[in-house]
Amino acid sequence: MSDNELGLPLALSGETRLFAVVGDPIVQVGSPGVFNQLLRKAGIPAVLVPMQVAAEDFATWFEAVKITGNFDGYVATMPHKLEAARLADGLSDNARRVGAANVFRRDPDGRWIGHHTDGLGCVGGLRERGARLAGGRAAQLGAGGVGRAIAFALADAGVASLRLHDADEGRVDALLADLGAEFPALALERGPAGAGGHDVLVNATPLGMAAGDPLPFDLSDLGADTALADVILRPEVSPMLEIGRERGCITQTGHDMVRAQAGLIMAHLGLA
Amino acid sequence: MSDNELGLPLALSGETRLFAVVGDPIVQVGSPGVFNQLLRKAGIPAVLVPMQVAAEDFATWFEAVKITGNFDGYVATMPHKLEAARLADGLSDNARRVGAANVFRRDPDGRWIGHHTDGLGCVGGLRERGARLAGGRAAQLGAGGVGRAIAFALADAGVASLRLHDADEGRVDALLADLGAEFPALALERGPAGAGGHDVLVNATPLGMAAGDPLPFDLSDLGADTALADVILRPEVSPMLEIGRERGCITQTGHDMVRAQAGLIMAHLGLA
Repeated sequence: MSDNELGLPLALSGETRLFAVVGDPIVQVGSPGVFNQLLRKAGIPAVLVPMQVAAEDFATWFEAVKITGNFDGYVATMPHKLEAARLADGLSDNARRVGAANVFRRDPDGRWIGHHTDGLGCVGGLRERGARLAGGRAAQLGAGGVGRAIAFALADAGVASLRLHDADEGRVDALLADLGAEFPALALERGPAGAGGHDVLVNATPLGMAAGDPLPFDLSDLGADTALADVILRPEVSPMLEIGRERGCITQTGHDMVRAQAGLIMAHLGLA
Repeated sequence: MSDNELGLPLALSGETRLFAVVGDPIVQVGSPGVFNQLLRKAGIPAVLVPMQVAAEDFATWFEAVKITGNFDGYVATMPHKLEAARLADGLSDNARRVGAANVFRRDPDGRWIGHHTDGLGCVGGLRERGARLAGGRAAQLGAGGVGRAIAFALADAGVASLRLHDADEGRVDALLADLGAEFPALALERGPAGAGGHDVLVNATPLGMAAGDPLPFDLSDLGADTALADVILRPEVSPMLEIGRERGCITQTGHDMVRAQAGLIMAHLGLA
């Protein structure tokens, strides 16, 4: 496959079905490149286009999406994941738990259904890389939107314990309560984590994007049997993951997590 | 150029600029095929997608277009050409005279400006084919939307006389009054026309689409020096044009007229 095929849909016609990725800003998104290539490979006469829409205009935009007959679904990125979920007609279990969604489809009955793939992509990617999830011990920094999504996905994957920390204690309280209600057998802990004794460490905060940021976890006793996942996209390999690679750990970057979601998003959109 | 390139844009990314053709129905439109090929050839990172929007939903759709930052313009087809012109912030002279527009761009100051290319495309195509326009005698059947557009374009092209007929006499009255106000030197006539003595005959009605339709004009005395133009798309060569071709006339089909508009539309959109 040549580089030119990344982002290239099938030829468009009046019968082309329409999908979008909506966000603000939009120029940085990778979805048009990834999904048009997948649509082309699958021979699906559809195109996914970028649409730049400010937070305060989302509801206006969605009204137009609903009345555009050949508009079948969309991917929501910053800052729309909460508002889009609020305006949807239904949510998957995962999206309902997280309180947000990043992919929406129009069902045959006209209802718009949201699904959240951030957490499922992160944890699915870790599983594929061989991380120990079922019965494992996990620690996570960050209990915001993406943190909620990943924590529920870790619980779904059967981790035995989950240690959570976030500078915002209220977020931790809320997420621990929600997790406890749905997963009574899961051992929940709070506070900063060291690497020792954990099978999985997840950074679900922006820590590592700025030079001089502290590490998300104390990695002094990090062993090769701990898997590390980061959500940040720049730098592509965060300082935490660099250390993990030096120690021989399984590591998953933010880009890996994005790639792991592509199939989940195509499936929710009815395209795979 | 292979058939596959018709409708193929450049690869899409987050930086792709967005254009649409909006109509109801939409599956029949040729614009995505034509314009994506032109955009690709010109190396412009933009895509034109079809959007199916019902007449009553147009205003809702346009509100969303206005707040979508990377949406730069659109082509309006049936049934939106009048409402779209009404909602635009400004119109070209041609669109203002016709009272409708089929192509709209967002200017750098944020204003949406409409232009009408149906008439200019029809008459420009006739000129390229060698029809006599300046000083010529023209007759036209149909004084509806496309009829108004073509009549003003014929007047702009300097025809000496224009004979108009339409089953709706009120339309003829209105168009003759509007033409007379702007082109006082143009000799205006009304009533059905025979071919004799005319340099140009234009059918701007659906006559010829249905089997058994009467001819738009009495062609009994049609000579080879009369140019014939039709607006209908099916059949591709109307019965009127078939007779014209038998007599050795210059003929222009509805598809020819659509093709003649492509450059005008690209220019109005700032893409050529």
